[in-house]
Order: sequence, then structure tokens, then C-alpha cells
Amino acid sequence: MTLKFSVVKTCPDFSARAGLLTTRRGTIETPVFMPVGTLGSVKTVSSRELEEMGVKIILGNAYHLYLRPGTKIIEQAGGLHAFIGWRGSILTDSGGFQVFSLLDNTTVNDNEVIFKSHLDGSTHHFTPEKAIKVQHSIDADIIMALDHCPPSSVSYEEAREATQRTIKWAERCRIAHMEREKEQALLGIVQGAVYSDLRRACAEQLVELDFPGYAIGGLSVGETKDVMYRVLEDTVPFLPETKPRYLMGVGSPDALIEGVARGIDMFDCVLPTRIARNGRVMVHGGYLTIRNASYTQDFSPLDPECDCYVCQNYSRAYIRHLLKCKEVLGIRLTTYHNLWFLSNLMVKILKAILNGSFSEFRKNFWSKYQEVKL
Amino acid sequence: MTLKFSVVKTCPDFSARAGLLTTRRGTIETPVFMPVGTLGSVKTVSSRELEEMGVKIILGNAYHLYLRPGTKIIEQAGGLHAFIGWRGSILTDSGGFQVFSLLDNTTVNDNEVIFKSHLDGSTHHFTPEKAIKVQHSIDADIIMALDHCPPSSVSYEEAREATQRTIKWAERCRIAHMEREKEQALLGIVQGAVYSDLRRACAEQLVELDFPGYAIGGLSVGETKDVMYRVLEDTVPFLPETKPRYLMGVGSPDALIEGVARGIDMFDCVLPTRIARNGRVMVHGGYLTIRNASYTQDFSPLDPECDCYVCQNYSRAYIRHLLKCKEVLGIRLTTYHNLWFLSNLMVKILKAILNGSFSEFRKNFWSKYQEVKL
Repeated sequence: MTLKFSVVKTCPDFSARAGLLTTRRGTIETPVFMPVGTLGSVKTVSSRELEEMGVKIILGNAYHLYLRPGTKIIEQAGGLHAFIGWRGSILTDSGGFQVFSLLDNTTVNDNEVIFKSHLDGSTHHFTPEKAIKVQHSIDADIIMALDHCPPSSVSYEEAREATQRTIKWAERCRIAHMEREKEQALLGIVQGAVYSDLRRACAEQLVELDFPGYAIGGLSVGETKDVMYRVLEDTVPFLPETKPRYLMGVGSPDALIEGVARGIDMFDCVLPTRIARNGRVMVHGGYLTIRNASYTQDFSPLDPECDCYVCQNYSRAYIRHLLKCKEVLGIRLTTYHNLWFLSNLMVKILKAILNGSFSEFRKNFWSKYQEVKL
Repeated sequence: MTLKFSVVKTCPDFSARAGLLTTRRGTIETPVFMPVGTLGSVKTVSSRELEEMGVKIILGNAYHLYLRPGTKIIEQAGGLHAFIGWRGSILTDSGGFQVFSLLDNTTVNDNEVIFKSHLDGSTHHFTPEKAIKVQHSIDADIIMALDHCPPSSVSYEEAREATQRTIKWAERCRIAHMEREKEQALLGIVQGAVYSDLRRACAEQLVELDFPGYAIGGLSVGETKDVMYRVLEDTVPFLPETKPRYLMGVGSPDALIEGVARGIDMFDCVLPTRIARNGRVMVHGGYLTIRNASYTQDFSPLDPECDCYVCQNYSRAYIRHLLKCKEVLGIRLTTYHNLWFLSNLMVKILKAILNGSFSEFRKNFWSKYQEVKL
């Protein structure tokens, strides 16, 4: 088995658990937040900065890497790790989310999804087998089955069709991956939109295929957080306790804590890096829009409670100045801080689970989180 | 005296010399290349990366910092060092170069220069006294007199007028700076375009004002390198051997070596950072345009002879990919490499002067430099 997972401690009041996830590149403490390196770079950040933050696993996007630089270059480099200079673990998304959620003119049938490149409009066909082949070339440690990810507003009938397709494709991916299952771990993705019975059916049928871990996809795509939490509660009980559970596309501090409380072990999201480039930073209690004029003469750190390199060395006023002048260092500093903040949040969550205070930690978080207006 | 300079060793065949320049922030080995941090940030680079490169002094631009964030904010922060989080030395340019060379609608009379902001078109008046006052607020360790810097194509009459004005302004700056001459060191700037007698007259009259160091301005503004070298030969002999000599706006490897050979101790230039953002890197023997398609599958480092973090960890193919995708990490890596390259070049030059092999070093450099087409 190329992916090992062990639960070290469970929370008495919630489904939260502390675990150890081991890929061929090393062991990762869970719950874990995984920064997204869409095109082979976590935007603005270097590998050694990620290591400094304690990051042990990052994401790559098969869709984006397939288009640029293309699998041939990545293969020639000796895989994505070698190409991008990253010694930790990598997980690649299959591309399903990108082609269904972000592109126009995507068409799908039971055999394949046909989409047009956002770069040059060229037409591409992704079968489940092709999605696996691309991810074999990229050679991430954890790869994802191709899924059909509809918007949150989808009707029951449409959701059912997408879910059935996702299950069939999961099986085809499972088969296509057999040749490399000792090198890379393939996870299945539970779909089913906001419909409890679809989620349950999907989870149960994927579990029969015996993946080394399960993702929950199709969330954080427009539904409210309460709906998302309810779907987690409807899904997690049907996933094996011995396997890691991965909630895709979620990265706000509140949702991380609530996801963990509902039994999630892994998260990824572009949120911390994207809002950083818009001049928004995560702080204890909420967010600050550091571009605002109110920070012009504020010489305090982004977050006075944070011990990251940025908060130890730079002021809000300076970072605001850099952002206003479009100096690259500005978005480097906000990005670094946000990633550190989430990495540090996960460490605190883990410690709380380990020492039996997760319930108190969660209560504390919410009492402060209300204090600052978002 | 707030600026100390001592010549440690001179070259027998050339005017090259090794020295120690001491500001209130520490001692800098010369010859030195000073990276430019126009708006309070060496573009894309953090303070600790500069420290890692061995950089001990950077530039700020009074013109740019006066407009953004403004001297009030910098004063409130406790000076530019505190504002930008830089523990090393800082030198500020007076703004003369910017207002004369880069802006339209700049007018000048013997009392002042009147210019329009490149940001909002607002009108500003800089007298020599104002230029000093702005630099007092910024509080760099070394500051520059306001000079009249004409283009290289200027007629003799115009050059003479600009030179006379530069001398008068230097005296006014000298007087305006007396109140802070124990905290900050003010350098005079020799002008005179390409005219030997003007350069000599300017140098001699500035030396009478007894500055702690002298810059040579108005070069690298359109003239050929041969002309620039000839002007250096016409100017340096009239500057005191006991004071540092600073050639403004020069940063190509060949010109650094030739400047050192002609007795220059300090250099600054946006070249390494600017070309990096255009995908061009300095290597032993010349330059590479790493954006070019020929590097698509080139997995060697930017410069196989370089031991910087970038060349030890990343390939040409990866950096090209990042640049093509407009990933910020791409220009971070090219910028880091170029600054390291120049920093390392200056270390090699210094060592060569110290061990008596500068002449050989220079010959070697030129034999390799010809091998690669620019």
C-alpha cells in the first residue's frame, strides 16, 4: 500500500481525529491544510518558504499542468517533484473541478468530458483513463479520480446523473491505475451535490471499490456553509474510519475547524493565496483588508498574535504601501502570512485534539471570530 | 565623521582598489554593487534574501518615496530602515536623476527644479534644500546632493550650464545638511556630460566643498561604454584617493569590472532586477534570455557555475515555465539569481584585488565574455 493512514487520537465530543498520513515522500500529521500550487508553484512562494511553514504536502492541478508545461516536459524532468524542486508530498486534482466548474463549452457523456482550453480554445477529451494517465506522467504521490462536479444549484435528477457517472468513472480510474498503485495512491471522490441519499449512495459504492482514501467533492461551490456542514454529516459516517477523508476546496479558518469537527483529515483551497493577492489577510478573529486607507499609518504587524517571519519583521503600513505600489514583495508577504496562519491553525487544532481540548478550542475560536466583522 | 573610508589595497596595474566603507549601520567591503530599492523594496526580494546574498547596502529613491508613501509616513515609522525592515545601510538618490531623465515637463532655474508627478500630474518644486530635507526625513545613511543631470546628447553650452548649477546646488546642499552631518553622510555628484574640462572643473570645485565621498553622475544615459570609460579616466584623477567614489546607474558585469579598473568603489543600477523581470539572467560569459523556447526542455540550472539558491534548486525549464505562466515565483527566481550573481562578482573582484590578481581576473573575464553573444 503506497498510502498509509493511522488514527492517533479521536475527539470524545466530535468526529475530529488526529492522524498520520504516510506517502512515499514522508509522513504528514493530520488534520492538514494543503496549499495549492496550480501550475507547479504555490503562487509567489518558494519551496524553502513552504518547508519553513511546516508544509509537507501541496497540490498541483492536472488540468493546468496538462496544458502548461504539458506532461512531456514534466516526464522529461523526472516528474513534478523534480520539475518544481519540491521534496515533500504532492497531490494532484484530476482536472474534473476545473473543466466542469471553470470552463464554458464543456460537454460530458458517459465516456468522457470534452472541454476547450482556457488558453487557446483548443478542444481536449478527458476520459477517466486519460485523467489517470496524465496524473501518472505528473507522478504526484496522491492522485484523484475523474469526477463529474456539478454546481450547487443542480437539480436532483442532474445530480443523480452526475453522481452515477462519477461512480462509474471512479471504477474505470481504479482499474486504469492498477499498474501504478504501488507508486501513487488514487483517492475516490464522493459527489451528490446537496442530496443526502446521493451522497450516501456514492460513498457506499466508492467504498466497495476500496480506495486508500476518500475525498468529498462538489462542496464550497455556491451553497451556504450550513448546507456544506450538513452534507458532511450526511457523508462522513459512510466512509471508513481507517481511511483519510479529504474535503476539497475548503480553506477558511471557520470551515477548517467545522470540517475537522465533522471528521475531515485533509483540506485544500486557493483562498489563502488568492485573498492575499487582493490585499486581504487572515488574523486571529477574522480578516483584515490591508489595502484599506485605515492602515496607512498602522505600524503594528498584520496579526499581533502571529509569530511568522512577516509579522515579526514588517508592518501593516509598509505592506499596504507595497500593495498600493504594486510591488511584488507586498503579495509575497500577505501570501506568506496567510499560509503560515493556516498551517499554524492546523497545528493548534491537532494539539487540541491530542490533548483533549478540541471542544474548548472550537468554542474559543468562535467567541473571538464573532468579535471582528468580516 | 559619519562616513569612514579606508583603502586596504591598491592594484599595481590599474586604479582598482579594495576598501572598507563604514556607515553608522556597519562596514561594507568595496568595491560594492548596491541593489536598488526604488520604493522601499528591492523588487520581488525580501530583506533576509538580501542579507543571504551578502548585500550590506541598498538604494532608495527620494523622488519615489517622497511621492509614495510620503515623508510623513516614513518619519512616523522611524525612518526608512524601520519602515522597510532593513538592518543594513541605505543610500538615497536625491531625485535629480528621476526628474531630469524620466519625466516630461520638468523645468529648471538656478533656484529649483519644477516637475510633475508621474502618478497624478501634480506639480512639485525641489530646491537643493528641499531635496536634503526630504532625505533627512527618509534618514538614509548616505544621501546625495541635488544635481542637474542632462542627457548624453547635450551640447557643451547646456552641459556647462547644468554643471555650474550642479556645483552651486552642491554647496547649498552642503550647507542645508550641516545640521545632520553627524548622522547622515552627504555625497557630491560630479556632472559635466562627456566634456573632460567640465568634468574636471566640477570635480575640483566639489572637492573644495569637502564631501565625505563623491559620485560620478550623468553617465550610462545614452553614451557608448567607451565614452563612459574615457569620462571616468578624465574624472577620477581629480577626486581624492582617500574618499569613496561612486559611479551612479551602472550595473552590467563588464562595466562593473571596467569601473573598478578605473578607481570606482560603489555602483548601483536597476539592471539586474529589471532584466530579471523581463526573463533575462546574467551568467558567466554573458546573458541568457530564459523565456526563449530553446530552454523549454533544458533542465540545467540558470548558470552551471553559480552556487546561489536558485541555481542549486531550480532548472531553466521550470523557470521558463513560470515566466510563461506569469507566476510571480519566476521573476523572484531570476531576480534573486541576478542579484546574487553581481554580489558574487564583486566578491571575486575584491579577492582579485586583495591577492594581486585583478589584472588576470579582468583578462579572464573578457576572454569568456566574448564567447557568448549578447
